[in-house]
Amino acid sequence: MRRTLFTQDHEDFRLLVRDFLAREVVPAYEQWRDAGLVPRELFNALGELGIIGTAIPEEYGGGGQDDYRYNVVIQEETARASVTLGGLRTHLDVVVPYFLGLADDAQRARWFPGLARGELYTAIAMTEPGTGSDLAGLKATAVRDGDHFVLNGAKTFITGGYHADLVIVVARTATDPDNRRAGLSLLVVEKGMPGFTVGRKLDKLGLTIQDTVELSFADVPVPVANLLGTEGAAFSHLGRNLAQERLAIAVGAVAQSRAAIEMTIAYVRDRKVFGQPVANFQNTKFELAAMATELEAAQALLDAAITARVAEELSVADAAKTKLFCTEMQGRVVDRCVQLHGGYGYILEYPIARLYADARVSRIYGGTSEVMKTIISKSLGL
Amino acid sequence: MRRTLFTQDHEDFRLLVRDFLAREVVPAYEQWRDAGLVPRELFNALGELGIIGTAIPEEYGGGGQDDYRYNVVIQEETARASVTLGGLRTHLDVVVPYFLGLADDAQRARWFPGLARGELYTAIAMTEPGTGSDLAGLKATAVRDGDHFVLNGAKTFITGGYHADLVIVVARTATDPDNRRAGLSLLVVEKGMPGFTVGRKLDKLGLTIQDTVELSFADVPVPVANLLGTEGAAFSHLGRNLAQERLAIAVGAVAQSRAAIEMTIAYVRDRKVFGQPVANFQNTKFELAAMATELEAAQALLDAAITARVAEELSVADAAKTKLFCTEMQGRVVDRCVQLHGGYGYILEYPIARLYADARVSRIYGGTSEVMKTIISKSLGL
Amino acid sequence: MRRTLFTQDHEDFRLLVRDFLAREVVPAYEQWRDAGLVPRELFNALGELGIIGTAIPEEYGGGGQDDYRYNVVIQEETARASVTLGGLRTHLDVVVPYFLGLADDAQRARWFPGLARGELYTAIAMTEPGTGSDLAGLKATAVRDGDHFVLNGAKTFITGGYHADLVIVVARTATDPDNRRAGLSLLVVEKGMPGFTVGRKLDKLGLTIQDTVELSFADVPVPVANLLGTEGAAFSHLGRNLAQERLAIAVGAVAQSRAAIEMTIAYVRDRKVFGQPVANFQNTKFELAAMATELEAAQALLDAAITARVAEELSVADAAKTKLFCTEMQGRVVDRCVQLHGGYGYILEYPIARLYADARVSRIYGGTSEVMKTIISKSLGL
Amino acid sequence: MRRTLFTQDHEDFRLLVRDFLAREVVPAYEQWRDAGLVPRELFNALGELGIIGTAIPEEYGGGGQDDYRYNVVIQEETARASVTLGGLRTHLDVVVPYFLGLADDAQRARWFPGLARGELYTAIAMTEPGTGSDLAGLKATAVRDGDHFVLNGAKTFITGGYHADLVIVVARTATDPDNRRAGLSLLVVEKGMPGFTVGRKLDKLGLTIQDTVELSFADVPVPVANLLGTEGAAFSHLGRNLAQERLAIAVGAVAQSRAAIEMTIAYVRDRKVFGQPVANFQNTKFELAAMATELEAAQALLDAAITARVAEELSVADAAKTKLFCTEMQGRVVDRCVQLHGGYGYILEYPIARLYADARVSRIYGGTSEVMKTIISKSLGL
Repeated sequence: MRRTLFTQDHEDFRLLVRDFLAREVVPAYEQWRDAGLVPRELFNALGELGIIGTAIPEEYGGGGQDDYRYNVVIQEETARASVTLGGLRTHLDVVVPYFLGLADDAQRARWFPGLARGELYTAIAMTEPGTGSDLAGLKATAVRDGDHFVLNGAKTFITGGYHADLVIVVARTATDPDNRRAGLSLLVVEKGMPGFTVGRKLDKLGLTIQDTVELSFADVPVPVANLLGTEGAAFSHLGRNLAQERLAIAVGAVAQSRAAIEMTIAYVRDRKVFGQPVANFQNTKFELAAMATELEAAQALLDAAITARVAEELSVADAAKTKLFCTEMQGRVVDRCVQLHGGYGYILEYPIARLYADARVSRIYGGTSEVMKTIISKSLGL
Repeated sequence: MRRTLFTQDHEDFRLLVRDFLAREVVPAYEQWRDAGLVPRELFNALGELGIIGTAIPEEYGGGGQDDYRYNVVIQEETARASVTLGGLRTHLDVVVPYFLGLADDAQRARWFPGLARGELYTAIAMTEPGTGSDLAGLKATAVRDGDHFVLNGAKTFITGGYHADLVIVVARTATDPDNRRAGLSLLVVEKGMPGFTVGRKLDKLGLTIQDTVELSFADVPVPVANLLGTEGAAFSHLGRNLAQERLAIAVGAVAQSRAAIEMTIAYVRDRKVFGQPVANFQNTKFELAAMATELEAAQALLDAAITARVAEELSVADAAKTKLFCTEMQGRVVDRCVQLHGGYGYILEYPIARLYADARVSRIYGGTSEVMKTIISKSLGL
Repeated sequence: MRRTLFTQDHEDFRLLVRDFLAREVVPAYEQWRDAGLVPRELFNALGELGIIGTAIPEEYGGGGQDDYRYNVVIQEETARASVTLGGLRTHLDVVVPYFLGLADDAQRARWFPGLARGELYTAIAMTEPGTGSDLAGLKATAVRDGDHFVLNGAKTFITGGYHADLVIVVARTATDPDNRRAGLSLLVVEKGMPGFTVGRKLDKLGLTIQDTVELSFADVPVPVANLLGTEGAAFSHLGRNLAQERLAIAVGAVAQSRAAIEMTIAYVRDRKVFGQPVANFQNTKFELAAMATELEAAQALLDAAITARVAEELSVADAAKTKLFCTEMQGRVVDRCVQLHGGYGYILEYPIARLYADARVSRIYGGTSEVMKTIISKSLGL
Repeated sequence: MRRTLFTQDHEDFRLLVRDFLAREVVPAYEQWRDAGLVPRELFNALGELGIIGTAIPEEYGGGGQDDYRYNVVIQEETARASVTLGGLRTHLDVVVPYFLGLADDAQRARWFPGLARGELYTAIAMTEPGTGSDLAGLKATAVRDGDHFVLNGAKTFITGGYHADLVIVVARTATDPDNRRAGLSLLVVEKGMPGFTVGRKLDKLGLTIQDTVELSFADVPVPVANLLGTEGAAFSHLGRNLAQERLAIAVGAVAQSRAAIEMTIAYVRDRKVFGQPVANFQNTKFELAAMATELEAAQALLDAAITARVAEELSVADAAKTKLFCTEMQGRVVDRCVQLHGGYGYILEYPIARLYADARVSRIYGGTSEVMKTIISKSLGL
């Protein structure tokens, strides 16, 4: 059905992104995949074109368009081109919003120009080995010592941690026996700070081009000037952007499902078995019809949620519903698409196999489907 | 999520309908259910209030609002009140549009005032024993004899056929060996015409309050003045409203699923097992969260489709996707709601059991899910 | 796959049952369905043929074969003939085993001859309005008064309660504040005892031929001689036969699913749409292949469980797995079979519609699927 | 439930295998995984212990036990140890049976001693780029030239092709315009034959330790003495073992699902979120109960099929049902197990992530689920 979400500005931006991907990314992508990493320079190139800095205020050299739809366009176009730009999604949809929302004037002056130009690339370090989604249970500590915090701890599952110039680290700066959620703060750790080590790249099932690493912090001296937001208020700071973080995962899920369906339609038309195209079998038709239907529902739900987000009225529960539905749909759709590819669906050279491997994490990260259901059930009064 | 579909006029209409149902329908409903029929007078009462005639032009005493959203409101409110107004949905969403689209001036003058006032209640007779969805294979014949057609044949699965004053009958008026679809015409048979017999009420699994009957026609003389639309053009006439007919089923599916979820939430909060409310179990919470999520997606898809319908741009394929998704969702949701009711979900006294029994036909009538998939796959170029 | 469960004796018994059904039941069944009840004489006829009393010891005139496979044969044959013999399954699989296991010599002498001949038909009354599966929470009381208990309370969902000559009623004979499960006893209430009233037949979604009623007990004087088993030990008595009760539901689920698949295969071969048999469509073939596969798995699981039962080694957890799998399979299969029948699948005249309506309770009674999962998860050490 | 399949001999063999895996495989496995290959010497070691040659007649130094249950034991034990022994399963379950069934005396003398000792490792080359499951459409040719065939063609998806000493190649030796299936022959190509090249190892989603390669044949001179079975009869030769090939995939699917469930139970007991073990959540319990139930059904079906196989009475349709059910079950189970692992389920270091990646091919190779449904539906008379 006709989408009503985008203006001409977004469509112009879409063409810019599409063109960039076709010229600069697709030809090199196989090589990047082999390396298991996108080159750091990619982000600078995106910065030069204004793709990476749309949300940064104009006074700092950005696009001055804090409009989530630009991020949507980027995800739609990368999915369409069957590429993943490393951890860019996390940088744009998750981390930059914290800087935008929490940086004080001095921090804005220090970091926003770099963010606008793609010179500063970011990550956020919440999860620790053993704590999972339980933020309040984290163990990293940052102890005030004069004009510094001394940071210690270990983090894992950090998307973009390999390339990141700035890492927002969640650490405990105080302990309140009555309130586990109190006393957490956000500290911006800069690449090269003493005691800050980037550990091994995790060997993931999919999203292998997205650098996901362990980070460790041993007596890292973080200047107080690098405290982002209010000391002790990390828990509430991190809650503010949750709806968009989850929405962003749903955007990817839908865009990649669309790509999966489209490449499968092309495949079954082309591929012959027993003397006729796979597309001729009723089972093939019905499978793809069922998938197209699920996709249409997901897109409708997603577009409604994006519209709500743009209007600043997307609730956490509605974001949870959107993530849950779109990622579960993605799981079903990519599985069925692989099946229609037969043996080729299992070979990573075929994008469908990569979409399958990538998709599995959607139902897990940004809050598992079970966490989403917990949130939703609360909103139902249960 | 906030719906953007309705104007204040629709909301005023909603209150009117809601009030009528509460006053006139709910108190008597148990009795009607026992009788397996709503009283014929119901439609007159709805006519007096202007509920049944919204789409009829004002010059004939109607509301002059050919706006499908009024029909949506009626389905939403009846579902909310856990009632079914016999075959009213078929009358309003399926049959009246044929009259509106095809009646000539004389027919408009004869029938529209009655339609506006609820004095004329209608049905449409397509299906025959043995032909199913294959319209072109029907066997009823209408042979021209002077200013009459002589109609012979048998029809089945006719919703509203018991109460109907006017029945649009699809019959073969000519045979073209090269085109099975040619030669079909629409004839309006009036209650009481000689040779027209209303047969037994079919014993259905659900929707027992909706009169579904067999009709037989033995040499029924139908005046040529009762030919609706162009002679021989029934096949294309009937195709015009298909999108709305299927959309209407989706509207019901979503409205009834919403009602099912709401009554189940109330039930699990109230009902105790092993010393605590059923609502306390994580399984209950997760089941309802999953259902609420599916419902939200269905509503988003449906509202987009209704919006397209109102703008006269709903394609047959998009209507098929909407029917397929919403009715399959309904099937899953009512099944899970029954389960959460335990043994009570199996007792027809509980509305959830009736919703379950009613729901099973949604995936079948108006074109089965398989027919929907066929339509959708064609739109994908398969 | 070849089944290895039955001996020649069972197969001879099968032919006896099959013949009886064809002669005495099938011709009258439509009439019984209209009445919503099988005639009481049916059980006498089954008694005369030795079908109803196989498990009763020979000294009391029974078959002396306490071999559950005879009960399996009865369920398989009734399903094959598309009939339900009222509450016979409950009588044979659930209630008679309590008499066999718990009756003392005097009780055996009083009741076993009647059970062997089909003159005594039984029911068991556990569930009360509002308690559901929580046996320990029941409220019926039996207060000792000389050589009687004075029984008071209300029971619901009592299968066979209309026809029953003997009803085993679970009631509280003592209260132990530390142990809710203690103090429950089994009393055999006989038809006609003063204060014992059979209430209305519940209006169920399916299994309409099986009389399910409410019972009420107002100061019913039950002789102490009618205490079945040990006073206060009902909770453990009732636990002894749970595995078989659930197994029996699984047997029905599998037998009815087989019947559903077979009638659907016949239907799709016969029924034509768009000029060819429904069986010709790949979707039809794949749906039925998928169902036949699920059925084969269920049958293999079930036969393993029956074999274990016969060897007296079926655990409660394995019975739970068997019930869960077979009834969930039944739910999926009958739903798909209805779909392949199109509109006719919704008309109760067609056995598939009745199988659909009947099937819904399998996942609920005898312990819901959720209760089964609870049992199974405990056996996994969770 | 208690399995009745194995004798003491099988259980002794099981301990032998289990011990070997613990000593020789598990400690080195991480290294082999990194290399993407098991060492060739592994098969010799298995030969020394008599594990690899159980089915080879004693006169050639084998175990003389052509009993498929030994192969079952190997799969169960490797799954239990979370390892995959390269393409051993294909060698044992698929290729060796062709040698056993088709080799003439001279071939038996040449090759069986090596097969018995693990010195000869095998593969079979059927699939070609572009032909998929359509054997009759293959393009490799073998033209008779004196006492040789000159073999040309390309094969792909060849499991074990990297290590194989003997490759059975299916090639066209004659063309019959009326019968595409005629004229195919089996030729045994030996490592090192001129013109025989082992191509690149395919980059698969999972089973990365199993070498799957492309092979090419350019004017390879294959002695007529290497013709296996009857010239032109490959199509019927290959059909003979199909039931076992598919059964073997089902065996793996069930064994790996069991391993997945067991490691997940251990994980959820150990892993804490929000202050309590994941095992404490009802959702966790229910998920695992549902999986254990499906597994039990699959095991029952599988054991019945293995029993039939051992009795030489497993039909192609029953093998198809078994493969379909067990592999679809595997797909559902490993997916749910990954979910319960949260983020760790996405990291290949965790066996569950590898089981997930490995599992996806089960529904594809050895005949896709769609091919299975086609076979099954034919057996239903559809």
